[in-house]
Amino acid sequence: MTISADRVAPDAIGLDWRELDTPALLVDLDRLEANIDWMAGHAGAGGVVHRPHFKTHKSVAIARRQLGAGAIGITVAKLDEAEALVDGGIDASILVAFQLASPFKLERALRLAGRVPLILAVDSAAGVGLLADAATAAGRVAEVWIEIDSGLRRCGVLPGEAADLARVVTAQESLRLTGLFTHAGQSYAARDPRDVAAIAGTEASAVVAAAEAVRAIGIPIATVSAGSTPTAQFLDASSGITEIRPGTYVFYDALQVALGSAGADQCALSIATTVISRPAADRAVIDAGSKTFGLDRGAHSSDLLVGYGAVQEIDGTLARLSEEHGMLDIPAGSPLAIGDRVRIVPNHVCTVSNLARRTYGLRDGIVREVIEIDAAGGVH
Amino acid sequence: MTISADRVAPDAIGLDWRELDTPALLVDLDRLEANIDWMAGHAGAGGVVHRPHFKTHKSVAIARRQLGAGAIGITVAKLDEAEALVDGGIDASILVAFQLASPFKLERALRLAGRVPLILAVDSAAGVGLLADAATAAGRVAEVWIEIDSGLRRCGVLPGEAADLARVVTAQESLRLTGLFTHAGQSYAARDPRDVAAIAGTEASAVVAAAEAVRAIGIPIATVSAGSTPTAQFLDASSGITEIRPGTYVFYDALQVALGSAGADQCALSIATTVISRPAADRAVIDAGSKTFGLDRGAHSSDLLVGYGAVQEIDGTLARLSEEHGMLDIPAGSPLAIGDRVRIVPNHVCTVSNLARRTYGLRDGIVREVIEIDAAGGVH
Repeated sequence: MTISADRVAPDAIGLDWRELDTPALLVDLDRLEANIDWMAGHAGAGGVVHRPHFKTHKSVAIARRQLGAGAIGITVAKLDEAEALVDGGIDASILVAFQLASPFKLERALRLAGRVPLILAVDSAAGVGLLADAATAAGRVAEVWIEIDSGLRRCGVLPGEAADLARVVTAQESLRLTGLFTHAGQSYAARDPRDVAAIAGTEASAVVAAAEAVRAIGIPIATVSAGSTPTAQFLDASSGITEIRPGTYVFYDALQVALGSAGADQCALSIATTVISRPAADRAVIDAGSKTFGLDRGAHSSDLLVGYGAVQEIDGTLARLSEEHGMLDIPAGSPLAIGDRVRIVPNHVCTVSNLARRTYGLRDGIVREVIEIDAAGGVH
Repeated sequence: MTISADRVAPDAIGLDWRELDTPALLVDLDRLEANIDWMAGHAGAGGVVHRPHFKTHKSVAIARRQLGAGAIGITVAKLDEAEALVDGGIDASILVAFQLASPFKLERALRLAGRVPLILAVDSAAGVGLLADAATAAGRVAEVWIEIDSGLRRCGVLPGEAADLARVVTAQESLRLTGLFTHAGQSYAARDPRDVAAIAGTEASAVVAAAEAVRAIGIPIATVSAGSTPTAQFLDASSGITEIRPGTYVFYDALQVALGSAGADQCALSIATTVISRPAADRAVIDAGSKTFGLDRGAHSSDLLVGYGAVQEIDGTLARLSEEHGMLDIPAGSPLAIGDRVRIVPNHVCTVSNLARRTYGLRDGIVREVIEIDAAGGVH
């Protein structure tokens, strides 16, 4: 697949990335396309569909490319991400992989379900009751998946509890149960690919066991969905799952490289910064801090990462961040000067997208398109 | 001073905070006003002016209240914060406490200097050259302060280097040197008020020594500016400084309470969340994670903080965050149920404002005004 320039800020197009004002998010379009194609091919070869997670990029234009490469639908972490997709013209099915518990959000979700195939998540009888009542009030039948806890200890029922909750869902006329899903986010705290593979095994067996228990009481389950970027690489239909939901793979980041999910040459997103101060021989200060990079050091694995991002091209470590400043430790003889540009791959790309409004898509270092971050961060 | 409802989202006004959709940022207006008044009184009693930092709240309406309480001007961390203030009608002087090194930003800054008294920062001969050239090109004389490093080891010249740089600045016809400033941000890594007091002493003596060295070569320095929220409480005119620049004091946060800068009953900002899942007896999951709270655990002092924020009203610890979920450890017998509201004071409020678009101003728990976050986060 090839990305066309469908959203363009004309005055950036054609510039070298070093000519952009900073901080700026840069996307290597060749790598982005290769990453999207690789995951689509991996899913297809493994006999599963894929439903990529929107939270990583929050960009309708990138979601459209994922769908164009064969994704069956999109996963979102919050309702306003789903609304941004639908407002942006996406009509594929959307999984809101999050329990909605406020009447405002339930009402909005059911309104959105009138515009696009929407799948909502439940993990408790109380949540089923709230959703069923809201669906009844809206005059709709809501499609529902049950969340299974495969070891993250966040939301979700344990596999042994799935059949009981499935009975509660199917007792509601305003709900239609069609799938189970899980997310083994503990894979982000793995130390190496062997750990990740083991977690992927646990993830698949938990959600498949839950599906078998539900089917055993006569309730059909079409979709058995699992996966994060690290575990998705180890998942295929042989385990009994039918769908994977990776997110970070579109860009990868320093944490994914540390986990062995990607090589450094697959990282598609970096942050362009400018040196604003050279106050000491071994220190350069750049114009991006925690309000650009976030403070992620990885879950339980900060010793796998060096500083707050992977410095590109030059020798240096992003050793400290304050809110708008980044402090680079550099060799004492470094020629780095005020005004120089420095490019850095972030530790955790989902945080970075959330803190920005757009990315600049590059080929061979030249801006070819501007990609809006439609659902950029913002508690409303 | 009293805050009037000058920016209002009518349908939220009059609601109890528990009726708002979540996550939502709540501001206790009585505490906000008391904090603003306290710092204004402290500065006045100490014989110094104050120039509060905008980065904490990024809200024109709150800056206006700080000016109304006697602030001499506003400090910002980045140029778009200054632009938001001027676009919002503020005409007081603004210090951009950040070295501008890109031609785009220098040009924008000099354009803004035609609309409001603007003070720009330098800490190197190279930076002076860039700024002087840009000012000459714009046909303006730019007001300049030199940044002094009082121990943070971020930007700034050491006190012994200030006179040499002052000569470089005053040799430029397009620049006018009127002040020196410093920020002892290492106070955020202090362990107790005694540590903070010692850092405040170092901060003042560094910038005052620099000012005396500059004055000794015949260059007048009107303003000697220092201060963060922790150190400002220990600073007055007796040290030789003339101005303090606290930011966080408008809201305070769990880190400031841990540092002894404020009591828990002075924290003005909290985050309203909803319980969305109760998957285990000792666990509740709320609808706000690192994309709402940030990941701040304090600089070198995470052991002073309990989890990712200070849980209010109920017994619980915000033990883990994923991007949109917060995991509360609660006592096994907790009556906390799906749909319940939980209020949490964040560890670091500047990060939280940057991640939101507005706050709800409360008196006695009832929404009385909606305060926009005009310069909310977003790398453009």
